[in-house]
Amino acid sequence: MLGSGNLATNLSLSLKKAGLHICQVYSKTQEHAKELAGLLDCEYTTTPEKVFNADIYISAVKDSVCTEVWDKIKFNNKLVLHTSGSLDMQLLKDYSNNYGVLYPLMTFTKKRHIDFTDIPILVEANTLKNCESIIEIAEKLSKKIQIVNSIQRAQMHMAAVWANNFTNHMYAIAKSITEKNNLPFSLLLPLIDETAWKVHDIEPIEAQTGPAVRFDENIINKHIKACPQEYKQLYKTISESIHALSEHKK
Amino acid sequence: MLGSGNLATNLSLSLKKAGLHICQVYSKTQEHAKELAGLLDCEYTTTPEKVFNADIYISAVKDSVCTEVWDKIKFNNKLVLHTSGSLDMQLLKDYSNNYGVLYPLMTFTKKRHIDFTDIPILVEANTLKNCESIIEIAEKLSKKIQIVNSIQRAQMHMAAVWANNFTNHMYAIAKSITEKNNLPFSLLLPLIDETAWKVHDIEPIEAQTGPAVRFDENIINKHIKACPQEYKQLYKTISESIHALSEHKK
Repeated sequence: MLGSGNLATNLSLSLKKAGLHICQVYSKTQEHAKELAGLLDCEYTTTPEKVFNADIYISAVKDSVCTEVWDKIKFNNKLVLHTSGSLDMQLLKDYSNNYGVLYPLMTFTKKRHIDFTDIPILVEANTLKNCESIIEIAEKLSKKIQIVNSIQRAQMHMAAVWANNFTNHMYAIAKSITEKNNLPFSLLLPLIDETAWKVHDIEPIEAQTGPAVRFDENIINKHIKACPQEYKQLYKTISESIHALSEHKK
Repeated sequence: MLGSGNLATNLSLSLKKAGLHICQVYSKTQEHAKELAGLLDCEYTTTPEKVFNADIYISAVKDSVCTEVWDKIKFNNKLVLHTSGSLDMQLLKDYSNNYGVLYPLMTFTKKRHIDFTDIPILVEANTLKNCESIIEIAEKLSKKIQIVNSIQRAQMHMAAVWANNFTNHMYAIAKSITEKNNLPFSLLLPLIDETAWKVHDIEPIEAQTGPAVRFDENIINKHIKACPQEYKQLYKTISESIHALSEHKK
């Protein structure tokens, strides 16, 4: 396992739980390498040149440093996987004849251990045989495997930014509004949950309610006026986008 | 019950379930009035002048038409409530000496009947006695009652627009990206759920991950390039807002 961040931690713990043997953790940060190796009961190293020979190498280091790490490892033509939403699979072709991608479509935090069973895993490989090998690993983790190409994976990563990072920012803004008004953010949690649950049953575009989709300029203007200065423009831009989408639907 | 829309339907069904007697539904649309009265097993009218004498009048008609409806009803100084996030409570002072607001902080759809138990109800009233009466009703519906003033209620309504309408728009955009790439939107549902669940435990600002908060310009620019034309600007604006918030935090 190359890496010891949020994804490396969650993924390697789930792989171990699924019965796979992780022989070693590499991380450039001694403290993180040691901590994860402790959880996995395996060896660790902070020197890429000292990475053990293995049957499978799973890279979960940051996109920006991965080639720098890979450059120093001898992969002996064994199966090398990366786990990134954005990195082109072909980056791996200089390192082994056997390579692919195992991308779990999820947001990870070290302290929140997530059950992989329902996490969709997007799989890509350079050969059919390698694809089968990756699927075999993925199926030990999850019920939801989807074979994709690099373009689809990059697009899903972007869709995930909307569904996760941008959504979370909407929560952060809502929280700052509740705080400014001495009200608990927890009042919004049932609404946040229902908003998420609703799109399991109803298309998001059909589920839309509120002043923007009704184009209720009276309330929109009241809200922009009452909105914290730094979010006024964003309120306006998103409202316009909601209205444009609902017009396009008609 | 004045109104027969999403909120009127969900609220009156829950009130009935909680043991309150709803004697009549008013709606200007005969079909809707009849349908809801059928569900409630009560009378209905489409003529505001024919609204029965009652102990409590609950108005769940659209903000834009409420005074027009109220103008035609004799409230006999009984308790009159509206249920809107935005309307000033003082609008009711011309109609009765006893008035207030019962605002359920939730998104409603006619076809999705929601259990009110966990829905926060924001309460406001013109007198302490009326406040107690409204709380008595609210407590039959929900465990979460919060007394607020008109400014707090309007601000919570705006926060709800961010947490619900704007969040739902992020889902709608994510869906349009999955569709364009022949991938099922359902792949994103576990991520959407986890994003919502995460902020039960972790502050949204702490839960943030992804290219915007890391200010990973390489991925941000890739995404903007790959983004549907109509959402490029919004991607950029929200990413900048995420980055600004994380800088502000430092």
